[in-house]
Amino acid sequence: MSPSAPPACDDCLRRTWLIARLAGAIEIARHEKRVLRELLAMPDERLIAVVGDAAGGDVAAELDRVDPAELRAAADAAGLAALCRHHRRYPRLLKYLRDRPAVLFVAAIEEPLERLARLVGDSRNDGRPTVAIVGARRASVEGNEIARALSRSIGALDVTVVSGMALGIDSAAHTGALDAGGGTVAVLAGGADIPYPSSKRSLYRRILEHGCVISEMPPGFTPFKWCFPARNRTIAALGKMTVVVEAAERSGSLITAEVAADLGRDVGAVPGPITSWRSKGANALLHDGAILLRDADDVLDVVIGLDHEPSTDPGAGLPPRLASLMRAVAGGRDTVAALAGTADQAQATLAALTELELHGRLRRAPGGRYVVVPDW
Amino acid sequence: MSPSAPPACDDCLRRTWLIARLAGAIEIARHEKRVLRELLAMPDERLIAVVGDAAGGDVAAELDRVDPAELRAAADAAGLAALCRHHRRYPRLLKYLRDRPAVLFVAAIEEPLERLARLVGDSRNDGRPTVAIVGARRASVEGNEIARALSRSIGALDVTVVSGMALGIDSAAHTGALDAGGGTVAVLAGGADIPYPSSKRSLYRRILEHGCVISEMPPGFTPFKWCFPARNRTIAALGKMTVVVEAAERSGSLITAEVAADLGRDVGAVPGPITSWRSKGANALLHDGAILLRDADDVLDVVIGLDHEPSTDPGAGLPPRLASLMRAVAGGRDTVAALAGTADQAQATLAALTELELHGRLRRAPGGRYVVVPDW
Repeated sequence: MSPSAPPACDDCLRRTWLIARLAGAIEIARHEKRVLRELLAMPDERLIAVVGDAAGGDVAAELDRVDPAELRAAADAAGLAALCRHHRRYPRLLKYLRDRPAVLFVAAIEEPLERLARLVGDSRNDGRPTVAIVGARRASVEGNEIARALSRSIGALDVTVVSGMALGIDSAAHTGALDAGGGTVAVLAGGADIPYPSSKRSLYRRILEHGCVISEMPPGFTPFKWCFPARNRTIAALGKMTVVVEAAERSGSLITAEVAADLGRDVGAVPGPITSWRSKGANALLHDGAILLRDADDVLDVVIGLDHEPSTDPGAGLPPRLASLMRAVAGGRDTVAALAGTADQAQATLAALTELELHGRLRRAPGGRYVVVPDW
Repeated sequence: MSPSAPPACDDCLRRTWLIARLAGAIEIARHEKRVLRELLAMPDERLIAVVGDAAGGDVAAELDRVDPAELRAAADAAGLAALCRHHRRYPRLLKYLRDRPAVLFVAAIEEPLERLARLVGDSRNDGRPTVAIVGARRASVEGNEIARALSRSIGALDVTVVSGMALGIDSAAHTGALDAGGGTVAVLAGGADIPYPSSKRSLYRRILEHGCVISEMPPGFTPFKWCFPARNRTIAALGKMTVVVEAAERSGSLITAEVAADLGRDVGAVPGPITSWRSKGANALLHDGAILLRDADDVLDVVIGLDHEPSTDPGAGLPPRLASLMRAVAGGRDTVAALAGTADQAQATLAALTELELHGRLRRAPGGRYVVVPDW
């Protein structure tokens, strides 16, 4: 692809049109999620036939009349960057989905594609560790607090929180990450230019400031019912781990967890009382082998562990900024004074050292020195 | 051993005296449980040396003066049967403990040794499926309800509930089993003739009526602190599965669970909110791989499954009364009329068939027939 080529190719933009047409033509119930995934994985010709059968009309002729330039212009007008699966910026994490989105429409205040790559990686690099956090819309006060606190803790360590911006747990997860100054990605079932649900308009704006909102559906698109489970597969694929905080039986969060497990990703869940409907889904996942999560450390054990190559690099498994600090300490620059290049960096250095200490990577020693904790 | 020999031999009775002497001489903290188990596994000579070192005095000479006949008489007077590890009535389940009790003192209203064998098996037969149910003394109302309901459900299916008669979960577990008309075994840290805690006097009496109270300590013995973790190892060993319903961090229930896991037995726990201290122990077990339990079926899946030899016996894994019914149905006697020998057995037969149906072993077919559900 030449450097001047747009990040979404004509074929993929046409496919987006076709998927949107599919959404309008075919009703799929939640329990038919395998059917949905089959449809989303179909090559264009088969999809044209299926949509034609369902909707009547000459879908192939309609598709011929679609002008990719118009879709590109519509995305531009809506402030969305369009990124197709053939482009080097397309996240490698999604490539494990046979039915991966043809195009991602990305909304962010500035440099959406660079930001997306930073948050969830691109076709060559996985970028920062990512965790999908999902759960009940009608969550309990405690559930929302848990999701928010968990996101805050992992967001502070440069772990990207991926969720669906739904009411309840999803929104709490995004909020926690933003509170910590961390990055977050919201995957919507409808167009990425439309805050959905509309009550989350101000959260949507905060995410645009510090993260990204993405969707595989075209700008302005109003989601049909099955767009939600379809969206869930993208959330699962973007998380190196999926975390479920409160979920009812047969809920969308369980679909996300199932996709994550199918992809071989770790699935964790926060347990709850066996007498509460809000815990039935999470407890069922745990019964079936999901990792029980009690706190942010239980999540970090998995996601930092995942990135952690068994090596003698004291910075292994850490985000770059913390990794270089670890290497410096191991190399003998072991005081705040020695580590902070200038006096006005002292505060930030101290904060990072404290972070490393809280996570058991460093221990404070007499004389203001820091030592690397062995056996990490 | 000749048929007229008493069920506890002289050597084992002397050892009981020695263990009681050890309890008075040596303090062991909870975290020193490995030390405790080492001590309990020591041969007599080493134990004599250890107790002598700790207590001073000539322990060997004291032991020489112990008259097993007197201990036997004391047990008799307290209404306890004494059963040693060399006797054929000694439960095989305890033989997996290197530090198994030398003697079990057994209290029950009638035929204590026969009853014990029926409830937890003897040296040749494992008897009925057994589940150890343990948990917090300061349990929540919900926790107590869960333990009681769980015991009631499994007790009704002739699964023996083993516990420690402590306040809270233990007592709720015994009570549930008794409510269901099921069998239950209480393992005490002090003498089996003394209701401990004393507030559980009426539960103690109910257990004597329908189950057994056992202890490895001699009659009249008041427990020292380490007798409780010692007792817990016996509870764990008597359960083919150990179930923890509410447990704080570093609680006795976790010792029971650890012993069970060391013995290769299944460990299950009921999850709870991560914000409650009462759930920390159970959630930690679940984090480390214990089976998450949502209801009695989750327990029965394990314990009935454990007994279930992969065989073509349709009664495999079931208590004898239900197993013979399964075999009869498989053999073509497939109506209540055919199965109940006489008219007044019809009601009981119907109840047993319904039980088998509820557990998915049988299905009702047209014409009042029952069919064996395949693939169990």
